[in-house]
Amino acid sequence: MVVVFDPIGVIHTPYKKPADMPVQGALYPESEGHVNVYPRFAEGLKDIEGFSHLILIYYFHRVDNYTLISRPYNDNTPRGIFSIRGPRRPNPIGMTVVRLDKVEDNVLYISGVDMVDGTPLLDIKPYFPDIDAHVAERTGWAQGIKPDERD
Amino acid sequence: MVVVFDPIGVIHTPYKKPADMPVQGALYPESEGHVNVYPRFAEGLKDIEGFSHLILIYYFHRVDNYTLISRPYNDNTPRGIFSIRGPRRPNPIGMTVVRLDKVEDNVLYISGVDMVDGTPLLDIKPYFPDIDAHVAERTGWAQGIKPDERD
Repeated sequence: MVVVFDPIGVIHTPYKKPADMPVQGALYPESEGHVNVYPRFAEGLKDIEGFSHLILIYYFHRVDNYTLISRPYNDNTPRGIFSIRGPRRPNPIGMTVVRLDKVEDNVLYISGVDMVDGTPLLDIKPYFPDIDAHVAERTGWAQGIKPDERD
Repeated sequence: MVVVFDPIGVIHTPYKKPADMPVQGALYPESEGHVNVYPRFAEGLKDIEGFSHLILIYYFHRVDNYTLISRPYNDNTPRGIFSIRGPRRPNPIGMTVVRLDKVEDNVLYISGVDMVDGTPLLDIKPYFPDIDAHVAERTGWAQGIKPDERD
């Protein structure tokens, strides 16, 4: 079974190549970007301006292979790919919660971005803290490691 | 441009059809299920047992079309599809944060599920509260609406 998706827009950020990017956008609220939603999907943006945070789901388009064991950023211990957030995944799907700063027609101005410029956008979801925010008392290997030293 | 994904496993839940499902799994911690990760990807589960919560990204495989304007569950007001969580999206991708209860080989026992049984799994990510949990002071049209009355 294969699943075929067609991007709904493009994410623009200040990061022209992966080496420029912050590891985790949430730690860099000043990291601003914008989303261009293709005009044929713009009607789906109705009511979105009421949300302070959005979930962006996107395609790691610069990745051309995957590995089941990988090393987190700044850490030499090999980890299973499903216990890290790096891009070289069997299905290279990225997810970041961003702040929505402003909406102008089919353009969303956002902050807290950590994608490379030109990233194809697959979906936008509203962020609901009562279902999306969890205390998560255990974070495995990442316990005690600073967020910008993992991925 | 099209993006092609190949599921990494299947999500099993008590819900045989969409009408049986809870609207938001996070509200039903007793809602248990399990994930069968295909053996060829099992090596990628290394270290995952240390996490209390996981992000599952999956394919709404029962959906065969989309709509840009839709009505949230139990609400008659039409909303843009990107400001609700319903399945009839241009790219029918679902995302749920679940609790990880136990790992046995390539099977993850989880709770807080809200998918239909047999849902194809696309990705698993570890949940990191410091980047994934946000206060989100504005939730638009959903402000004051109980979580199980929206989608």
